[in-house]
Amino acid sequence: MSVVVMKFGGTSVANVERIRNVAKHVKREIDAGNKVAVVVSAMSGVTNQLVGYVREASLLHDAREYDAIVATGEQVTAGLLAIVLQSMGLKARSWQGWQIPIITDDAHGVARIKDIPGEKIRQRLEEGEVAVITGFQGVEPTRNRVSTLGRGGSDTSAVALAIAVKADLCDIYTDVDGVYTTDPRIVPKAQRLQKISYEEMLEMASLGSKVMQTRSVELAMVHKMRTRVLSSFVAPDAMPAASPDNWDKLGTIICSEDEIVEQRVVSGIAYAKDEAKVTLLQIEDKPGVAASIFGPLADANINVDMIVQNLSSDGKRTDMTFTVQGSDLPKALDVLKGAHKTIGYFDVTSSTEVAKVSVIGVGMRSHAGVAAQMFKALAEKGINILAITTSEIKISVLIDAAYAELAVRTLHSLFGLAKD
Amino acid sequence: MSVVVMKFGGTSVANVERIRNVAKHVKREIDAGNKVAVVVSAMSGVTNQLVGYVREASLLHDAREYDAIVATGEQVTAGLLAIVLQSMGLKARSWQGWQIPIITDDAHGVARIKDIPGEKIRQRLEEGEVAVITGFQGVEPTRNRVSTLGRGGSDTSAVALAIAVKADLCDIYTDVDGVYTTDPRIVPKAQRLQKISYEEMLEMASLGSKVMQTRSVELAMVHKMRTRVLSSFVAPDAMPAASPDNWDKLGTIICSEDEIVEQRVVSGIAYAKDEAKVTLLQIEDKPGVAASIFGPLADANINVDMIVQNLSSDGKRTDMTFTVQGSDLPKALDVLKGAHKTIGYFDVTSSTEVAKVSVIGVGMRSHAGVAAQMFKALAEKGINILAITTSEIKISVLIDAAYAELAVRTLHSLFGLAKD
Repeated sequence: MSVVVMKFGGTSVANVERIRNVAKHVKREIDAGNKVAVVVSAMSGVTNQLVGYVREASLLHDAREYDAIVATGEQVTAGLLAIVLQSMGLKARSWQGWQIPIITDDAHGVARIKDIPGEKIRQRLEEGEVAVITGFQGVEPTRNRVSTLGRGGSDTSAVALAIAVKADLCDIYTDVDGVYTTDPRIVPKAQRLQKISYEEMLEMASLGSKVMQTRSVELAMVHKMRTRVLSSFVAPDAMPAASPDNWDKLGTIICSEDEIVEQRVVSGIAYAKDEAKVTLLQIEDKPGVAASIFGPLADANINVDMIVQNLSSDGKRTDMTFTVQGSDLPKALDVLKGAHKTIGYFDVTSSTEVAKVSVIGVGMRSHAGVAAQMFKALAEKGINILAITTSEIKISVLIDAAYAELAVRTLHSLFGLAKD
Repeated sequence: MSVVVMKFGGTSVANVERIRNVAKHVKREIDAGNKVAVVVSAMSGVTNQLVGYVREASLLHDAREYDAIVATGEQVTAGLLAIVLQSMGLKARSWQGWQIPIITDDAHGVARIKDIPGEKIRQRLEEGEVAVITGFQGVEPTRNRVSTLGRGGSDTSAVALAIAVKADLCDIYTDVDGVYTTDPRIVPKAQRLQKISYEEMLEMASLGSKVMQTRSVELAMVHKMRTRVLSSFVAPDAMPAASPDNWDKLGTIICSEDEIVEQRVVSGIAYAKDEAKVTLLQIEDKPGVAASIFGPLADANINVDMIVQNLSSDGKRTDMTFTVQGSDLPKALDVLKGAHKTIGYFDVTSSTEVAKVSVIGVGMRSHAGVAAQMFKALAEKGINILAITTSEIKISVLIDAAYAELAVRTLHSLFGLAKD
C-alpha cells in the first residue's frame, strides 16, 4: 500500500467526460490498495473566462476579490470529480482550500503556502476515502479570505499536500507523458527521461519547459518528495497502479541526484522565447550605475535575468544589456524612462526577437568543457551569442530568436541526447 | 441614515454591464448616507450551467458536492460587484457564506438558515464599507461544508441578513417593479400594489406569484422586517435613495397589516398551473383510509395540497381526489402503487391539465360572502370547480387548466382590482 497524491491539470479535466477518465485513474489506484488524494485544476478555459470577467469589471482590481472569483473554477472540478467517484462506488469528498485549511500568506494572486495541517486528510485516506482537493487556492488566515497561488499553482498545491499527508509519491498527470530531453515538437528524436534530479528539473521548469511550476519543484526538492510526471491521456486500465516496484517504469521520476545511477553530463536542452532584450546606450561607467538601473526595476517587481556590461572603450561610457520577461517589457521601458535622469543613459533599444537556449545537467559539475563545446557548436552553425549566464548545472545563451530551433537541435545532437 | 439590505437576482446581475448598473444603485444609497449590504445571486444562466455539469457527472449525486459546486456562481458575482464598487471609489468587500458565517442546518440543497452573527458585518457597514454577500448559500458547521438554500434562496439570505444586521429595510430588486393584483401578462389592467401584508404576500408567493421565495416572506413576517419589492431595471439615478419618508413611493412594501390603512377586501388574484390532480377510485369509506393514503405520500416528501372526498352513495366505497405539485406526480403515483394493498383502491386516475386560481385578501376576515361571489361569477362563465380550499385570507379553486386565464380575468374584475 502506498499513499499517493495525484494531480490533474486543466486539460485533463476539461469536461465531465475527461473528469470521468480521471476518476478511472483514481479507481485503478484504490483498487490496487493505494490511498489517494487528488488535486485538481479548473476545467480548461474556465479560469480564463473568470479572469476575463474580472478585467471587464475593472482593469485595476483588488487581488482579494480576484482570488475569490478565480478560485471558484477548482471548486467546481473538485465537486464534480467527487460525484463521479461516488457514482463508481468509491468513498470521496471534495475539499476547498479553506476547509483543510491550506494556509497561505497574504500575497493574493501569487500567494505562497505556509502550512497545511495534514492529519485530518491523512486519516480520511487511511479510512479509504478519496480526498478531492482544489488546487491553486488556499486561505489567508488573518482576514480569512480565499487566496490563489498564481498560474500553475496546482502543481505546488499537490506537492505541498503530498508533504503534508506524508505521501509516498506525488504523481503529476499532465498532457505529456514525462519530461523530455528537449521539446519533441522541435526535435522529434527527443527522449523521455526516466529520471531527472530536482536541481535539473528546477532549471527545466524555470527555463521554459512548462511541465511543472518552478515553486512546486523547489518544494519537492527541499522535502525530498518523490514526484512523477506522467500522462492522463493514457487509458487508465493500460497503466499499472503506483507501487514502489514500478514507479520508474512510467513517466519521469523527479528525485534526488543520488537515486540516478547512470548520470549523463547533459540531461536536457531547454529554451524560452518569451524573453526581451533591453540595451541602455552610453551609460556612465562608474560605481553605482548598475544599482540606479536595477533598483527601480526590482521595485517595480520586474525580474531581470541575464546582464551583460560591455567593456568601456574610453573608461567613461559603456552599454548595458539585460533581459526581462517579454510581458514585462513595456513596464520595464516605462520604469527606465522614469529613471532617465538618475541613470543618465543616451538611449534605450529593446527587442523581443531573442531566445534563451540552455544546456542542463548535474553532470556538468564534474565535467569541464561543456561550455566550450557548446559555444563551438553554435559558432559552427553561424549562431551569434548575445549574452551568457551560467550556474553549476546550466549554461544559458541568448541568441536571435530565428535561430532558436536550430540551436536546440544542434545542442541536442552534440550532447548525445537523441534516440537511436 | 438608514441601514439597507439590497438584494439583486440573476437577471439583475446577468453580465458585467448589468453588475455595473447594480453598483450604481448601491452608490446612490451610499451617496445619500445610507449603510448598505448587498446580497447577490449568480449571473443568470450560471446556476443552470453548473447544475447541468452535476447531472452530467451523475444523476444520483451527493447533495453536499452539489452545493459546493452550485454555490460558486454567487461567489463570482459577489467578487465582481465588489471590484466594480471599488472602481467607483466605494469601500467594498465580498463575503462568502462561510466567512460571515451564514449558519444553516445540514439539509443540503434545501438548507435552512439557523443563525447569522451580524455584529461584524454591521460594524463594517457603520464604517462605510459596502458588504457584498453571496446569496443562496451558507455553511453547515458540523462538517464545515458549503450548503445552499434551494431555488430562490437569495431572497431568504437577504431577509435573514437584514434581520441579523438590524437593517431598517430590505429591498428586493427584481425584474418587475412590484407586486401586482395579478399577472399583468394575463390582465393588462392589473395594478401594482403600494403595500401588501406579510400574510397576503405569503399566499401570493406560495400560490405561484413567483416574486419572492415563500420562506423569505415567512421570515420577514416573523421578524417584522419591512421588505420592499422594486425593479433594478429603472435607471439608478431616476430613483430616490431609500429613506423613511419615501419607502412607500416606489415598488411594493411588504409590511404588517396594521400599516395598511386603506384595506381592500381582496388584494390579488394568484394562479398556479404546475398542479396535478390525482383521484383514487372506490376506496373504502372507513376510518384510517386517509392516513393510509397520505402517510406514505408524506414519507416520500410529497406535499399534498387540496383534498376532496366524495360522498359515499352506499356508505362503503367512495372516491378521493387531491392535488400535488406537477413535478411530484410520477413519484406520487409510484408511492400509491406501492401502497395499493394497504389502501385498497380500485383504480387511480391523474391529470396535469388543472390550474389553481386563488383570491387573496386580509379583508376577507371581516367580509363574508367573498366565496359565494366568486363561485357565482365562475359558474356564470361556465367554469367547473373541481376542488376548493380556503384559509382565513384566501379561497382557492381547482379548475380545468384551459379556463385559468378566463377565471383570473373574471375574478380580477369582480373584485374591482383593475386600473381605471
